[in-house]
Amino acid sequence: MSKEDEITNWFASQSTADANIFPIGIGDDMAQVRGGDDGTVLITTDMLLDGAHFDLAQCSLEQAAYKAMAASLSDCAAMATVPVCAVCAVGLPEGFGEGKLKELHAGLVAVGRRYGCELIGGDMTKWRHTDGRLAINVTMLSKPSGYHPPVRRNGAKVGDCICVTGTLGGSIAGKHLDFTPRVDEALAITRDAKVNAMMDITDGLSTDLNRICKQSGVGAVVFSDRIPVSDVAVNQRGHGPPYGLDAALCDGEDFELLFTLSPQEFEKLPRLKTAPITKIGEITGGGCMGIKLSNGQVERLTPQGFDHL
Amino acid sequence: MSKEDEITNWFASQSTADANIFPIGIGDDMAQVRGGDDGTVLITTDMLLDGAHFDLAQCSLEQAAYKAMAASLSDCAAMATVPVCAVCAVGLPEGFGEGKLKELHAGLVAVGRRYGCELIGGDMTKWRHTDGRLAINVTMLSKPSGYHPPVRRNGAKVGDCICVTGTLGGSIAGKHLDFTPRVDEALAITRDAKVNAMMDITDGLSTDLNRICKQSGVGAVVFSDRIPVSDVAVNQRGHGPPYGLDAALCDGEDFELLFTLSPQEFEKLPRLKTAPITKIGEITGGGCMGIKLSNGQVERLTPQGFDHL
Repeated sequence: MSKEDEITNWFASQSTADANIFPIGIGDDMAQVRGGDDGTVLITTDMLLDGAHFDLAQCSLEQAAYKAMAASLSDCAAMATVPVCAVCAVGLPEGFGEGKLKELHAGLVAVGRRYGCELIGGDMTKWRHTDGRLAINVTMLSKPSGYHPPVRRNGAKVGDCICVTGTLGGSIAGKHLDFTPRVDEALAITRDAKVNAMMDITDGLSTDLNRICKQSGVGAVVFSDRIPVSDVAVNQRGHGPPYGLDAALCDGEDFELLFTLSPQEFEKLPRLKTAPITKIGEITGGGCMGIKLSNGQVERLTPQGFDHL
Repeated sequence: MSKEDEITNWFASQSTADANIFPIGIGDDMAQVRGGDDGTVLITTDMLLDGAHFDLAQCSLEQAAYKAMAASLSDCAAMATVPVCAVCAVGLPEGFGEGKLKELHAGLVAVGRRYGCELIGGDMTKWRHTDGRLAINVTMLSKPSGYHPPVRRNGAKVGDCICVTGTLGGSIAGKHLDFTPRVDEALAITRDAKVNAMMDITDGLSTDLNRICKQSGVGAVVFSDRIPVSDVAVNQRGHGPPYGLDAALCDGEDFELLFTLSPQEFEKLPRLKTAPITKIGEITGGGCMGIKLSNGQVERLTPQGFDHL
């Protein structure tokens, strides 16, 4: 038996996939998955690269695996959908043997299980050049919650409250490797309130809010003194007040929820134990974004977050 | 607008996805897909690496994209399922700009459309080190045909005929970049006959037949003079008769179908216009594989195909 088959068999032996939901699991040409009650699934794919999204000189394989799964789980959360399963393909550097593969696998499975998300397939392949580095690609399927339709980016309405979960900025100091994907929070929010638009903040608040505005054909104004700046960001960028605001607006990989809903629905929002929900602004007409400073002045807010290209 | 958003919008503008099947398409956190009539989808993921699966020093981006999509389509064929959609994530080398992204996109879309398979999402990211090379990850969803259940590897039965489509060996000379994924052939075969086990031959006949045997708990004997050796393989390895047989048994990336069915069902097989179907052997009891030579002797057949690890 080939090494590939041996390790695939081992992965299959670790699976606890429910045969009702996964009629075909690891080890065939494809895995089979039962979708939501409406017969649909949602899909997201993300590639994480050593040296770009994580750095194996400074973090463990388990941390890299955590981030790869958690980033996709955060996409499920961004739509307020229920994670179902994931497949993971890896491009391996030289000398990446069975022990490391099992470590990677353990990281993927551990975070997946926390959210009921089974690892049901994958692919392993090796770089042929000496400086080939680890690439991890996770593709995840989710299903509608059944009580709220998947929340898109394009539904924001003039007058909506703009809200975020948690705190923003300074993720690179550590949070980007151990953030909590807001799956439970998104499902709790949409259980109690009708949400018009939502996404997860991955490229910085200013860039991601701009995406909601552009796709919804609206504008936005945020209040500088309402933006929940993380302690890390406050301490990192203490050049003057408002401390850390730039970091909160521009830093990538917050993996918090950004969403809009009517003032009536805002009143229905649950109090989350795991993360505060903060109203940071309002959706306006027109296509521009502004930021209202504490002195009452409104300045233009431009997207200054991360551009992958 | 960021470059990433600009190109994503352009990709979205190229999409012709039917909103009934894809309620949410390119440009959100996830795409939404309607599954088969039974509420299931099948999923496969494959990572292709520059220098391993294709070589951009010797082939075009369009060829690399073709191979990436066709390899996943071949997985759909391997289960006799109907391709539905794909998402593609890429890890990009330095200097890989908009023009090249559009070339890659064109290659993916062209082959997808030939099989009714929409590109509905993706991810773009860049290597930070100078020798980072192109990684293409395609994840594809398919659905059951409705007239034959997805065909697994584990259903081969003693007495089954072992069949292959097309010819085998020597794919590296060119076929690996322009093979025909046997989607239509698999659907035609399973329309007319009940197939017990099937897969696509990616790592060499001897290795892949061994996988069917191991998963089905059976053995196999193949007849050396029945194996359809490709002309390329015959001409490449003309060291002595049987010419090219080793190549047909061991070379990777044939992307032909390998399947087993009862002698009664074998009689029902359609005559395909696009590829011959050849009976190459029989499923036997026990767990071993043998090859019957033209002098009548049976030798042990060991898996000697490609091991990705």
